[in-house]
Amino acid sequence: MKIINQPIRSDWPKLCERPLFDQQDFTATVSDILDQVKKEGDQALFDFASTFDKVKLDQLQVSRSEFNQASQRVSQDLKAAIKIAYDNIYKFHFSQKTQAEVIETSIGVNCWRESRAIEKVGLYIPGGSAPLFSTLLMLGIPAKIAGCSEIIVCTPPQKNGLIADAIMYTVQLIGIDKVYKIGGAQAIGAMTYGTETVPQVYKIFGPGNQFVTKAKELCQVDGMAIDMPAGPSEVLVIADDSAIPSFVAADLLSQAEHGSDSQVILLSTSQKLIDETLIELDKQLNLLPRKDIAKKVIQNSKAILLPDMKSCLEWSNIYAPEHLIIAIENVQDFLPLISNAGSVFIGNYSCESAGDYASGTNHTLPTNAFAKQYSGVSLDSFQKKITFQELSETGILNIGPAVEIMAETEELIAHKNAMTLRLEYIKNKNND
Amino acid sequence: MKIINQPIRSDWPKLCERPLFDQQDFTATVSDILDQVKKEGDQALFDFASTFDKVKLDQLQVSRSEFNQASQRVSQDLKAAIKIAYDNIYKFHFSQKTQAEVIETSIGVNCWRESRAIEKVGLYIPGGSAPLFSTLLMLGIPAKIAGCSEIIVCTPPQKNGLIADAIMYTVQLIGIDKVYKIGGAQAIGAMTYGTETVPQVYKIFGPGNQFVTKAKELCQVDGMAIDMPAGPSEVLVIADDSAIPSFVAADLLSQAEHGSDSQVILLSTSQKLIDETLIELDKQLNLLPRKDIAKKVIQNSKAILLPDMKSCLEWSNIYAPEHLIIAIENVQDFLPLISNAGSVFIGNYSCESAGDYASGTNHTLPTNAFAKQYSGVSLDSFQKKITFQELSETGILNIGPAVEIMAETEELIAHKNAMTLRLEYIKNKNND
Repeated sequence: MKIINQPIRSDWPKLCERPLFDQQDFTATVSDILDQVKKEGDQALFDFASTFDKVKLDQLQVSRSEFNQASQRVSQDLKAAIKIAYDNIYKFHFSQKTQAEVIETSIGVNCWRESRAIEKVGLYIPGGSAPLFSTLLMLGIPAKIAGCSEIIVCTPPQKNGLIADAIMYTVQLIGIDKVYKIGGAQAIGAMTYGTETVPQVYKIFGPGNQFVTKAKELCQVDGMAIDMPAGPSEVLVIADDSAIPSFVAADLLSQAEHGSDSQVILLSTSQKLIDETLIELDKQLNLLPRKDIAKKVIQNSKAILLPDMKSCLEWSNIYAPEHLIIAIENVQDFLPLISNAGSVFIGNYSCESAGDYASGTNHTLPTNAFAKQYSGVSLDSFQKKITFQELSETGILNIGPAVEIMAETEELIAHKNAMTLRLEYIKNKNND
Repeated sequence: MKIINQPIRSDWPKLCERPLFDQQDFTATVSDILDQVKKEGDQALFDFASTFDKVKLDQLQVSRSEFNQASQRVSQDLKAAIKIAYDNIYKFHFSQKTQAEVIETSIGVNCWRESRAIEKVGLYIPGGSAPLFSTLLMLGIPAKIAGCSEIIVCTPPQKNGLIADAIMYTVQLIGIDKVYKIGGAQAIGAMTYGTETVPQVYKIFGPGNQFVTKAKELCQVDGMAIDMPAGPSEVLVIADDSAIPSFVAADLLSQAEHGSDSQVILLSTSQKLIDETLIELDKQLNLLPRKDIAKKVIQNSKAILLPDMKSCLEWSNIYAPEHLIIAIENVQDFLPLISNAGSVFIGNYSCESAGDYASGTNHTLPTNAFAKQYSGVSLDSFQKKITFQELSETGILNIGPAVEIMAETEELIAHKNAMTLRLEYIKNKNND
């Protein structure tokens, strides 16, 4: 880790910049894949499964018997663990439901908002080295609570043509029955355009590799909505002498193992805490199966000593971390100062992995400083809020003349007329 | 208006498609403008004002004395009208504030969400033929309520180098002091990259012409967030024999006068209502200053006779209108059937122009069927929701083992370690 000692303020924004990775531009490749799915439908999906996933599929959709068999192979311990996570995530996201409250803005003018589910949503669950059933919990549960009438899952098949057991079990626990063995950009294409087998959806959720990310970016031009822009995962830890160095090191490493582009930052007012954390880092690092990845990330990472806690918070707000762990004394005093973060973990016992899996909060969060403008996934992500209004005669009499003057000033005379006709109608009626 | 009599169900989606307009691709032009602003800053903005707005500016920012003078020129009647709108919009958007509610998902695991303002926002207010101060109310008021610390407005200068008086007055009423005389794609560029004079922002709001729309689309690649994708404005009216034909006609026309690409649809169960509305339409149309635009829109529009009210609602949900006016008997029975709409106007007295100006709801709404996935602008648009969590020892003991198993199954061993270390620490501590 690079240790930076009390950097001057004007250097902060520069130090907060994410490193630029040399990325290939996959636009042409991904456009071609999307086009092929649009034109050839299912056939393209079978072809891509053969080319990219190295598997010859008979069917794109997971069958009932595959579901049953997969569930039987999941251990009781894992089932019990997933159930705990499920319950907590359900409870937290269910609490995000809101009741319509009618506001009488002027007498006779009632306005309110009602939530409606986005009817058709698609969840992309990456395959890769391990089955990310936790992401399925994070996306599937709020989709169900919102009441989306069509929820589909696309996830790449394994070499044996099957989907990982843990994903299959989780899908059933949530109550989703449409699962398709499709990975990569072609999955995004299938959900955007629809095929003979895969229904078209209105919004796509979920992480993925660079091809998936690029496909999600491109499909927006065809009217698709997506959960949020993507970027490498990151954690920023603010710790003082009340923090426990081995915990801080473990938290930094649990981010570092995600991938070589992960970001890890430690801010502290204590040189001692930084020193002890670095010692712990070395110790823990060497025991990790993914130590090569984690080592690379840690080498590119920064531990920054700052003069006081307020400075740490200011720095963090400039960085706008996806995950912010804050293990300091009098932490409650500092929470109001947090303005930009995806999810905040408070104290020595709130490790990121709690929120990644089972505490109940969502782990689909804004990266790459997008926490300045975006929220993480929540129940809101699966709903629209529709405004309603109902005016009475009194309402028209109260605001009608104001509308007339404003519409006339904006030179929208038909807008004015719609109000004038109603005002006259009421006047005539009341004179009768 | 094209009258369509009881079309068969399979034709509905086709009939609901928006007409495609032959649009030039402005990508290259707009990219060049954005690049020039990025490179040359203020100088580019002065140059574009001279080229596009035909005005030689001395300063980009509106001065204090310009504000004072403009306000004096606004009539007391207009000021009073704007104040009524302001109060109603403020009341409705203020009611959208939420309180953090702590959810104990498992014993010792506390999770909650807190709202934080997006710190820096930019509002684009088009100039064009008339000053759209109503849009300024719709964007500026929720930005203020959210507590955005930097709110800036860009709006094109008139030929005399000034901003329209009504906009200047409204800006002051809301309490925004940074207003810049910048229009078009260059305004979007200035807010995206920042210049010597114009601060960079995190999210851009507001309607505009095709150049502005394209610029908002392109600037997202550089990390900008925008309010929502743009499209032509539209209204769908559902009316039965309880509706008043002259009102329906006036409401259709108030949409039709917006521009030649506006969309107007009438659904009814009553041939009589359709016939009488068409007669009224002809009558009212000829009196409008913008009758040429409105006539063109009405010619391209559809009145559709359907067998029952449920069919009307189903149709409307496929179309997903920006504005839905529903003037029918027993309207309350049908509101739960509305699943896709931007804003709903209920009954004979709730004309669209009420919501466009002064009822309190927002008029920045999803067009082009985006109401299937997007909400209109609200207080939420100016905030992020940050999740927080705090676990106690008990919390760790309750969910820790589940996290360990799940992390191990996903092959994320450092994630597991972060939890294992804490579980061991607690065990050792309690054994002491």
